[in-house]
Amino acid sequence: MINAARLSTRLHAMAQIGATGNGGVNRQALTAEDTSGRRLLLEWAAGRGYTSAVDPIGNLYIRRPGIRPELSPVMTGSHLDSQPTGGNYDGVFGVLAGLEVLETLDDFGVATERPLELVVWMNEEGSRFSPPTMGSAVAAGAIPLDRALATLDRNGVNVGEALAMQMAELPPLAARPLDARGYAYIEAHIEQGPILEDENCDIGIVSGIQGLHAYQVEVRGAEAHAGTTPLRHRKDALVAAMSLIARIRSEIADPLDVLRFTVGKFEVAPGASSTVPGKVTFLIDLRHPDPEHLAQTGAKILRLCSGQVENCGVSAKVLLQSTPVQFDEKVVAVVREATARRQLKSMRMISGATHDAKYMAGHTPTAMIFVPCEKGISHNEAEHARDEDLAAGAQILCDAMLAVMSVEKN
Amino acid sequence: MINAARLSTRLHAMAQIGATGNGGVNRQALTAEDTSGRRLLLEWAAGRGYTSAVDPIGNLYIRRPGIRPELSPVMTGSHLDSQPTGGNYDGVFGVLAGLEVLETLDDFGVATERPLELVVWMNEEGSRFSPPTMGSAVAAGAIPLDRALATLDRNGVNVGEALAMQMAELPPLAARPLDARGYAYIEAHIEQGPILEDENCDIGIVSGIQGLHAYQVEVRGAEAHAGTTPLRHRKDALVAAMSLIARIRSEIADPLDVLRFTVGKFEVAPGASSTVPGKVTFLIDLRHPDPEHLAQTGAKILRLCSGQVENCGVSAKVLLQSTPVQFDEKVVAVVREATARRQLKSMRMISGATHDAKYMAGHTPTAMIFVPCEKGISHNEAEHARDEDLAAGAQILCDAMLAVMSVEKN
Repeated sequence: MINAARLSTRLHAMAQIGATGNGGVNRQALTAEDTSGRRLLLEWAAGRGYTSAVDPIGNLYIRRPGIRPELSPVMTGSHLDSQPTGGNYDGVFGVLAGLEVLETLDDFGVATERPLELVVWMNEEGSRFSPPTMGSAVAAGAIPLDRALATLDRNGVNVGEALAMQMAELPPLAARPLDARGYAYIEAHIEQGPILEDENCDIGIVSGIQGLHAYQVEVRGAEAHAGTTPLRHRKDALVAAMSLIARIRSEIADPLDVLRFTVGKFEVAPGASSTVPGKVTFLIDLRHPDPEHLAQTGAKILRLCSGQVENCGVSAKVLLQSTPVQFDEKVVAVVREATARRQLKSMRMISGATHDAKYMAGHTPTAMIFVPCEKGISHNEAEHARDEDLAAGAQILCDAMLAVMSVEKN
Repeated sequence: MINAARLSTRLHAMAQIGATGNGGVNRQALTAEDTSGRRLLLEWAAGRGYTSAVDPIGNLYIRRPGIRPELSPVMTGSHLDSQPTGGNYDGVFGVLAGLEVLETLDDFGVATERPLELVVWMNEEGSRFSPPTMGSAVAAGAIPLDRALATLDRNGVNVGEALAMQMAELPPLAARPLDARGYAYIEAHIEQGPILEDENCDIGIVSGIQGLHAYQVEVRGAEAHAGTTPLRHRKDALVAAMSLIARIRSEIADPLDVLRFTVGKFEVAPGASSTVPGKVTFLIDLRHPDPEHLAQTGAKILRLCSGQVENCGVSAKVLLQSTPVQFDEKVVAVVREATARRQLKSMRMISGATHDAKYMAGHTPTAMIFVPCEKGISHNEAEHARDEDLAAGAQILCDAMLAVMSVEKN
């Protein structure tokens, strides 16, 4: 049995790092707060004698040795970075549940054939450096390392520079090549949606992740004086961007409300009250579980984001086009059997959010475990999950990581 | 005759300070660049032996003595602060034309009965600290000093702190009370609109300024995860803000295209690609020459910016409600006569932009002189004015400042 009190204490300790004072955290990737979070985790791991390593994109690997070190590890993991106004569970729960599994096995003196490995992915959220799930994408070869390291934040700092700063602040870590393959990977996470709570379920057995497209759209007008320039002479990039987004929303409207269309980042330049905006840059986040529907909608958006809108030039570039992912049915079955043995109420589900498990699924048999979160609120400082649900999730993770060792690979 | 070459050289020197590399400047109020600009001006003034003083809100006063020092001064002035991507003439021209007037009188050994005073207003642009024309408003008693000093920029620095930092970097200046009254005030400025160029005029005789209302609107939704939250459950502050602005634009549409409605500053929080925006804050800049039309349109906007829009709460606060201003007809006549004597082609006009002259007009007989700027482009790094037009404007300023001394006050 995992130690629920220890898990809760550690979640609270991690919530202090980058605390905003409004109940949440701001611990964006490779900031000083992210570094502090990683340092605390590495201290806990070092206290147990686990070895820690880092790959070239900054993913951390904490390993509990197996009886047969030559075997590939059973892996778990998630992320410690947060949204700018993030909650205390998104990502953190999966990391600390993973640590809890390793420590529980130590507490009970359990030796395993295979090593166990806990991964802390670099930049899952993508709020400081775009795109999200950058660390797992690079480890899986989906994004070239060089391109990821050159990605700039809004202050012109790139990932490579920020990572070097973080490494200088952490205790020395063994270098490890870009290879995150394991025998299996199981990630625990809060659901970030309302379904488990609505269905009164303890555990979500996650069989896949819906697809995600991300586009960056630029609308180019002309700066002009707000007091002297007649409206008909203007090339107002804000007016054009608003008109464009309204048109996109109307043309892709989904009566079933399954499609997720979001503009979360929207920047107006120069951003002065008496200057007609000369440029707007915004990001589109588009998701759907059906690959065909997603591809068609994405193509429609790219067509709309070209040419001229309200006297302004419009162009878009693709940041991410990830198709929906199906997890490994054998690993999914291991999770299902674990919940049944513990007599927890569970349901099979598709993840609405993306996770690093998406890229792991490309090279390692993968599944995920969801726990309920209050009213489905996430990416919000009010995010909350109950201790008993978190403990149940960590217990299923522990059971499933042990059980998956005896599953033959396909 | 003023020295056109010296004026041009000084305009070029000032354009180096805060130069963006794209032909314009970023010299926002009370930044290091603004401090450098003021230091350079004070050096030029000190080289001529003029005395310099500063009032509690940071307006600089450079004085050339008169034969009768007890008389109130004839004043001119403008501003050295710029938009974030501003041009090389907006404000700077008026300041350097004013300095040119003082120096020309020295060059020719002209003594005047009344002192002449050149004012550099603090924060005319309002891009770092809102509202615009802050320095002249405080000097005129239209904004309480305490409130202005407490105004925050987006990094949480207030005007008082930024001003103290600037003063520590400038040579010691005499302190002067908050009182900008003079015998007359004449401000030279580029037009920032296309009318003089279209009409092939050298000089605009500015008889007033159209009214300006500024509102800050806040739209409050709820942050939510972009991948998991169905659209019908969202309180998307960006969607609501766009819908609100579209509705305002439609309801206040002016077929004559005289009304100026601009949203120049528009900020989306938290601004992360996979988080539904929880809050949008934007500024409305609204102008019209007719006080009745302006008041009615402002009231309509305030009604629309209240209550609920698309599941989000909306509220607005008034930052500025300045009615249209009429300048002093005697001073306007002095300017007109000066252009006639120099045989320049001129026209009477209303300023579309606001200026510090607006607040001066409340307590001191005031007028303005406009010079053409290319295609009316301003608040833009491409802003340009021709040397011969600038020289003509400075000459008229010189002639009018001398002539206004012999005009009896009303």
